[in-house]
Amino acid sequence: MVVKVYGSDYANPQRVIMCLIEKEIEFETVFVDVLKGENKQPEYLKLQPFGCLPTVQDGDYTLYESRAICRYYAEKYKNQGTNLLGETIEERGLVEQWHEVESHVYNPPIYNLVMNIVVSPLLGLPSDPKVIEESEDKLGKVLDIYEERLSKAKYLAGDFFSLADLSHLPFTHYMSQMKKEYMIIEREHVSAWWDDISNRPAWQKVFHEKYQLAITLPNASTFVVGERPETEASCHDVREIT
Amino acid sequence: MVVKVYGSDYANPQRVIMCLIEKEIEFETVFVDVLKGENKQPEYLKLQPFGCLPTVQDGDYTLYESRAICRYYAEKYKNQGTNLLGETIEERGLVEQWHEVESHVYNPPIYNLVMNIVVSPLLGLPSDPKVIEESEDKLGKVLDIYEERLSKAKYLAGDFFSLADLSHLPFTHYMSQMKKEYMIIEREHVSAWWDDISNRPAWQKVFHEKYQLAITLPNASTFVVGERPETEASCHDVREIT
Repeated sequence: MVVKVYGSDYANPQRVIMCLIEKEIEFETVFVDVLKGENKQPEYLKLQPFGCLPTVQDGDYTLYESRAICRYYAEKYKNQGTNLLGETIEERGLVEQWHEVESHVYNPPIYNLVMNIVVSPLLGLPSDPKVIEESEDKLGKVLDIYEERLSKAKYLAGDFFSLADLSHLPFTHYMSQMKKEYMIIEREHVSAWWDDISNRPAWQKVFHEKYQLAITLPNASTFVVGERPETEASCHDVREIT
Repeated sequence: MVVKVYGSDYANPQRVIMCLIEKEIEFETVFVDVLKGENKQPEYLKLQPFGCLPTVQDGDYTLYESRAICRYYAEKYKNQGTNLLGETIEERGLVEQWHEVESHVYNPPIYNLVMNIVVSPLLGLPSDPKVIEESEDKLGKVLDIYEERLSKAKYLAGDFFSLADLSHLPFTHYMSQMKKEYMIIEREHVSAWWDDISNRPAWQKVFHEKYQLAITLPNASTFVVGERPETEASCHDVREIT
């Protein structure tokens, strides 16, 4: 049964696609046009009641929330493709620790940067210079701690690539587009880590083949000024659609 | 080896304590005085470089991020105490899905309510009526989806109590203190679910024995107006200390 991924063209779904490629799992993608509000239509809401992306359908089984989906496939196909959970329960604990750090410490400031520097201008919405400044400052402090951690281990959870590293790829990918790559480059160990994980064949496939990030593509021109997608308060606002 | 939990008096550490009680794991707690900035002192930062609570020490093994810690103990002691992960990989997938929903969809608005209605007044800080109104509206929409889900299954991930339910306890506990309990009571299935999970012996133990939530206790008077703890931008602001 081929896994069906809804919402392939946005950053959070890319996390799932990267995981599926690492795990050598066959999949197909379904484009959900957030700008046309397709994620709020009854058909999609039957799969994902909050109207957020991504969702996967795997036969009769439906699952949403990108990090939960990654955990599911990493566990289900533990002995296929790249092991993304570590070898022991203790290693897996550290994978989850850094996976949560990505989710709650690293992602909020980089998400704010991507929204304000990349997405808002495309949507004809104003950017907030104060949010940009504060987020850059926060992210810098987080990266200082990453630098210290990565001076002691090749990857975040230890000397093995894991879900914790993988989960950083989609948003960190925007660093160069935001002209913030200096934040990576000026930190020796973060820089080596980023070179390593972003050059993995699976991520190259995500990025260079057909699963490219929507807002780096020419079809970004389909963003019509003022035609912002409906963002129901019950959803994560735009968190799950970038 | 007795597990040592740092930061027992705040909501996120309570998530870990609830899990340890459900799993019948012996532990002891260590009070970290956030208001005195003890979480930013070098000794604590050696354990948790971001200065956030909780952290556990289990012999030589140190772990932080409350949801990661819960996953670790739920997995390590799968056959001891309450099974919190479901029986199959598919059930575990749904546990993780709803665990992520709690983390990214449910928690942000309820966190904002707790901060603005309970914590800010205690700290002598202003509350933001707009944030309160928007957060209540968001939370209501999320709870409407919970109501639908809980009309079909006794618990979030299915007919079994899991980490997904457990993770809601510490912040939802503040509903009555915030005089927002109507949001639970007016939704039949959410109300039955809340009655069920909040009456679990483990949560009663968390709440009524010595691991009470700090800001519901008389020692809340130790909050000195204007003496706000340092909240480094690199941390989750006050996310991990309530």
